[in-house]
Amino acid sequence: MSINIRRMDMNAEGFDQQLDQLLAWESVSDTKVNSIVDEVIARVRSEGDAALVEYTNRFDRTSASSMQDLELGQARLQQALDGLPADQREALEVAAQRVRDYHQRQKGESWQYTEADGTMLGQKITPMDRVGIYVPGGKAAYPSSVLMNAIPAHVAGVDEIIMVVPTPDGVLNELVLAAAALAGVNRVFTLGGAQAVAALAYGTQTVPRVDKIVGPGNIFVATAKRAVFGTVGIDMIAGPSEILVICDGQTDPDWIAMDLFSQAEHDEDAQSILICPDADYLDQVEASINKLLPTMERREIIEVSLENRAALIQVNDLEQAAELNNRIAPEHLELSVEDPEALLPSIRHAGAIFMGRYTAEALGDYCAGPNHVLPTSGTARFSSPLGVYDFQKRSSLIMFSHDGASETGKVASVLARGESLTAHARSAEYRIKD
Amino acid sequence: MSINIRRMDMNAEGFDQQLDQLLAWESVSDTKVNSIVDEVIARVRSEGDAALVEYTNRFDRTSASSMQDLELGQARLQQALDGLPADQREALEVAAQRVRDYHQRQKGESWQYTEADGTMLGQKITPMDRVGIYVPGGKAAYPSSVLMNAIPAHVAGVDEIIMVVPTPDGVLNELVLAAAALAGVNRVFTLGGAQAVAALAYGTQTVPRVDKIVGPGNIFVATAKRAVFGTVGIDMIAGPSEILVICDGQTDPDWIAMDLFSQAEHDEDAQSILICPDADYLDQVEASINKLLPTMERREIIEVSLENRAALIQVNDLEQAAELNNRIAPEHLELSVEDPEALLPSIRHAGAIFMGRYTAEALGDYCAGPNHVLPTSGTARFSSPLGVYDFQKRSSLIMFSHDGASETGKVASVLARGESLTAHARSAEYRIKD
Repeated sequence: MSINIRRMDMNAEGFDQQLDQLLAWESVSDTKVNSIVDEVIARVRSEGDAALVEYTNRFDRTSASSMQDLELGQARLQQALDGLPADQREALEVAAQRVRDYHQRQKGESWQYTEADGTMLGQKITPMDRVGIYVPGGKAAYPSSVLMNAIPAHVAGVDEIIMVVPTPDGVLNELVLAAAALAGVNRVFTLGGAQAVAALAYGTQTVPRVDKIVGPGNIFVATAKRAVFGTVGIDMIAGPSEILVICDGQTDPDWIAMDLFSQAEHDEDAQSILICPDADYLDQVEASINKLLPTMERREIIEVSLENRAALIQVNDLEQAAELNNRIAPEHLELSVEDPEALLPSIRHAGAIFMGRYTAEALGDYCAGPNHVLPTSGTARFSSPLGVYDFQKRSSLIMFSHDGASETGKVASVLARGESLTAHARSAEYRIKD
Repeated sequence: MSINIRRMDMNAEGFDQQLDQLLAWESVSDTKVNSIVDEVIARVRSEGDAALVEYTNRFDRTSASSMQDLELGQARLQQALDGLPADQREALEVAAQRVRDYHQRQKGESWQYTEADGTMLGQKITPMDRVGIYVPGGKAAYPSSVLMNAIPAHVAGVDEIIMVVPTPDGVLNELVLAAAALAGVNRVFTLGGAQAVAALAYGTQTVPRVDKIVGPGNIFVATAKRAVFGTVGIDMIAGPSEILVICDGQTDPDWIAMDLFSQAEHDEDAQSILICPDADYLDQVEASINKLLPTMERREIIEVSLENRAALIQVNDLEQAAELNNRIAPEHLELSVEDPEALLPSIRHAGAIFMGRYTAEALGDYCAGPNHVLPTSGTARFSSPLGVYDFQKRSSLIMFSHDGASETGKVASVLARGESLTAHARSAEYRIKD
């Protein structure tokens, strides 16, 4: 039995509407989720540790008696790292090093310049003092996510990295703890959900308040992050993961089928789209999908994801494929074509661009170097991969010479009086030379 | 009659609690505001232009019959610019040029590097396609805000800049329109409130959907921005404006009093704080405040602001002042001291730093060059001034050579299998050389 994947043609009538339907996704927090999250946040703010222990025991089915039971020390993290099989430890170390090398290049530097009259202007860059990283637990506990969230913070120079990770039924993931040890996480709390976000945003007796919270989570986590946005910084509200593959029809169709699977296996809402100018090639990939699907461990998830949210789209040529990419603004874009560099200038919006037939998205998910926390659901139109810049901030520097203050003060005075802000005007006028 | 300004001593008992009270500010959107905003957004999404016209007529007391009445053409903007008095036009042009010069230096550039095995990694920087800037109307209509929001977008290379500005009772502000002409705004709609935010976020028949919305507004605007966050990018949720002055006690106390006034005159919630190691100097500034206040046009606002939210704080020395600054993380920091560069390394958190006795904050508000849209309410701990970087975004670039894909594929395979994501593993394994 073959699965049913949506086939579309960019030049067919009604395509725009079909595309809108294909991409439609809104992470709506319904009233019930909102009210649960509001209550959790309010109780964590007012009761602190006690509320954290109670919620964690209730939601994660643990039996903590105090926050001491919900913190893991550095020794425990190191023990997890030491206990890994050699191949896993080595792979994790290679991945951490590659991620560190890439992110080093993102580090912003302060700058300043001096004008002719001696006035200095500039921008000072400083790291945040303390950040929180949320790592999902349970079935979606990914050690790679620990590296991807913690290493950029570390490279930025953040003093203290606090990690929260839920442990449903008290089950710890050794790879996750090992990754925390490798990535330079300072403290780990086994907390999850809205209560973990609230603790990081407001602080409790035990959990220190942070400046920014990053990392993906379920709908309760996303809703809580939105609710505390402004009190602390947050990275983004993540939707389901997506891949868009643009192929010239010359890549082994089994490879492309597997690339689509690698996205679809994340969860039933994940989205996999293939664009190609060659209708025969779309048939070949569909055949590969049907051939390979029965061999996949996560075939049930893959099947639902592909049937509900995948599409094979025919276009006229690669330029039209690029145009379609810019409308979709995908999280992951594979350019599985002969000359990806020729196509690159036409690509305006994508979280990460995987160029050439050898560059499977999976490489980027783990160890290519760039971050795997990427803007989803079309938000690549206006947002960027998680990076060192997410953990640094800027302060403007302004130092006027007496001459500069005098000349610029005259301009400020005119504009301030135009806005009827006369204290502004007089404050500037005091610095004008007689 | 002298006004009553809070006096504090950083080394007195109970200071920490007093400080918390002084800084306490939470822009709470109450249930009523939330439900109004939710309804406005829902109606603009479903009814488009018709809802915009109806809400605008109701809230701004206008009598538009269609969206044509709510759009201003380029000719109207140019007319406003041409009609300005010469000194205002010149001042606006000088300000625009200085703001442009400074922001040019913030422009991010794409980069890439190639590893020994031929693998290329990089980061591509592109501007957003279309952004919306919200400019407050009515009593707080500031042409300088038009420059500060639009110029960075223009420098970033944004194709289309859409401005919305409410015109209560249909009154246009010529300086605001002139600033829009100077700053390269592409379209102007006379819309405000939650309805303007909804129109920009979702688009209507007439108003094009944007990728990001920036600019300050009242509680309805702030609530709407929070609600559409994720659908579009937003800059920040702005609180009341604040200044923190650190003075060594050697600046003319009248100057410092006026600098505090320049913040306080914005609105009753604005906050002005002076820190000094010299108690006598705090007395002198208080005397200047009482002397100058009766001469101020906006003295009623200044008085309420100073009585409710200002403080004169004594510390041991300038290093302790810097430590206190880092706890406050102010929007504006004036270092009115002999050697501001010596103190700068101790300053970790501030939106903009005004260095030296000649550098009044008012200069930065209009024409120093750096942006005047700055993080408020302590959010300088984790956020930055509005800048060119707010209108650009990054895409990661990854192009593996066959050798690179083979070696890195082995690492990815181990990690993917450790996470039980076998489609990821097999996708990487296809690219491993035999």
